Amino acid sequence: MERRDRQDRGAGPLNAAADPAVVETDALIIGAGPVGLFQAFQLGLLEISCHIVDALPRAGGQCVELYGDKPIYDIPGTPRTTGQGLVESLLEQIAPFKPTFHYDEQVATLARQPDGRLLMGTSRGTTFLAKTVFIAAGVGAFVPRRMTVEGIARFEGSKLFYHPEALEQFAGRTVVVHGGDDAALETALALAGQAKQVTLLHRRDAFNADDALVARFRKAVSAGDIRLAIGQPTGFDGTRVQVATPDAQTVDLSVDALIACLGISPRLGPIADWGLELERKQVPVDTERFETRERGVFAVGDVNTYPGKKKLIVCGFHEATLAAWAATTVVFPGQSIPLQYTTTSTRLHTLLGVG
Amino acid sequence: MERRDRQDRGAGPLNAAADPAVVETDALIIGAGPVGLFQAFQLGLLEISCHIVDALPRAGGQCVELYGDKPIYDIPGTPRTTGQGLVESLLEQIAPFKPTFHYDEQVATLARQPDGRLLMGTSRGTTFLAKTVFIAAGVGAFVPRRMTVEGIARFEGSKLFYHPEALEQFAGRTVVVHGGDDAALETALALAGQAKQVTLLHRRDAFNADDALVARFRKAVSAGDIRLAIGQPTGFDGTRVQVATPDAQTVDLSVDALIACLGISPRLGPIADWGLELERKQVPVDTERFETRERGVFAVGDVNTYPGKKKLIVCGFHEATLAAWAATTVVFPGQSIPLQYTTTSTRLHTLLGVG
Repeated sequence: MERRDRQDRGAGPLNAAADPAVVETDALIIGAGPVGLFQAFQLGLLEISCHIVDALPRAGGQCVELYGDKPIYDIPGTPRTTGQGLVESLLEQIAPFKPTFHYDEQVATLARQPDGRLLMGTSRGTTFLAKTVFIAAGVGAFVPRRMTVEGIARFEGSKLFYHPEALEQFAGRTVVVHGGDDAALETALALAGQAKQVTLLHRRDAFNADDALVARFRKAVSAGDIRLAIGQPTGFDGTRVQVATPDAQTVDLSVDALIACLGISPRLGPIADWGLELERKQVPVDTERFETRERGVFAVGDVNTYPGKKKLIVCGFHEATLAAWAATTVVFPGQSIPLQYTTTSTRLHTLLGVG
Repeated sequence: MERRDRQDRGAGPLNAAADPAVVETDALIIGAGPVGLFQAFQLGLLEISCHIVDALPRAGGQCVELYGDKPIYDIPGTPRTTGQGLVESLLEQIAPFKPTFHYDEQVATLARQPDGRLLMGTSRGTTFLAKTVFIAAGVGAFVPRRMTVEGIARFEGSKLFYHPEALEQFAGRTVVVHGGDDAALETALALAGQAKQVTLLHRRDAFNADDALVARFRKAVSAGDIRLAIGQPTGFDGTRVQVATPDAQTVDLSVDALIACLGISPRLGPIADWGLELERKQVPVDTERFETRERGVFAVGDVNTYPGKKKLIVCGFHEATLAAWAATTVVFPGQSIPLQYTTTSTRLHTLLGVG
């Protein structure tokens, strides 16, 4: 079975295509939540290759981060599943198309090339050159909430760490953990014993965390394994955290490393700067192609808006379906693609590996 | 938990509501295929009661009639199912809402009442008075193909039967079975022995049926258990079938009953006469409410059309979702219904019986 004809577009003056570090693809999907995953399925049925980028270290997006083990009852034909269960089913469903995943990356820039394609750079320095882009970013990338202390960003990755996964790097160091939720307390407890000294810094002497965890933490403080500092950080120079205490004093905490656990929250991030005419942080699309004002840039799922829009997964599945069909006019210009059914089409069976 | 307020509309001059034979409901769904079934689910979540009418004797529509045991790969989150499997899952999913099914019935008439509600009559004489109607009729009702002999319709149910399920009624009678496919041959074979005399009437001496079945049939003809008549029926007066033979003769077959097995084919039927401005047998709808030109009459699934329309089940699920939300403005006028998620809403959990 031959692939469909592809338009041979000349490389533009920038000639990004000639750079071996550039990933060329028919489609780039931004967001590996349920709708982004099903987008890959519909593109696969239409023989459109794709890469998927997500800011998280795994697939599932909000659905797994917030509802991983919670029941979901309104996926059609699935009387009951969970966020995790739904995502696993979708990963199985798209497996025949072997999409390439790029985790822990955020697409930062989007620029139209002279040949009409879209050049995108990520937070990790990956560059994509794609004929079409599908923004399936939900309510935004789930990223750690940043500290608002002035000038602190320059220490990120060297002296300042947000929700670090590997804690061995802090062994033998003097560490301040900033925050008051489960993640902050768990991090402080995990470091007690490994680190030279652990201080938990929180704005007040009360925690938004599991009772048993708080009890364990209080015990570690009583035993002297963890120090507790109450106050707001107001400055950081890489070695000292300046703290304003509740009684209006200023104290300095000496540190080798500052770890901030202030929660994970969604941020639309750089997408907001791509000139897509946001309406209340949503990207407006039409209901025929689910395309933004930019040709070849589609928006599906919770990130988009149109008359009647409901932020429901079932609606995102439909949007991804019509957007994939709309993309055929960009990827296979001038060709008329017939609608085929997975029940009866031998071509689709071959693509699905069930032929 | 209280039900939402319902508008108290006065009964119109016709006063259909006062007739105990009239079924009053918030919503009537026409068609029990996958989209009609999911329509009942979305209405249920919104506390809109419904009845479902289908021309077939069971749920599933085209999906079960044509693809009952065939694989389906493109239902989101369900890597593989069958037509039957999908319908069973949907029936399980909607079970908490206990919709009332009316099988073997076709909605024949639709008339707006003075109070704004819609009065509908079925082929079996049931009358519905509904605030909203959801046409989920697919490519039409799957009904037996009719004989085209002039004036024959008046014998239907007394002397003429299409694909009858119960054959005991023909015991001891002289019967002609008209048709040449599996159903026709199976019916003739089933009647041989029960009926006084069985004749199979087909336009030519060749059959569009399973080889083994044809062999069994030929054997029964050789044994004299079934008579075979070749020709086209040209008249029927209730006791004699007039047949034009291939050699241009006319012969009469005396019968107590004429059974026609000419295949089951979809027909949009009476819906075509409801003034909904059909475009190539599709009902045009908007993409915000999936409403026809008639207020409160929605069309979802393969029966509707709009810019970008693809006849895919996944699209019908979305259409049913937005149509259900649109119906809240008719059933609960003036009330603003918040979007709730089945994952977190205790109200939805109660409705789903998982509270």
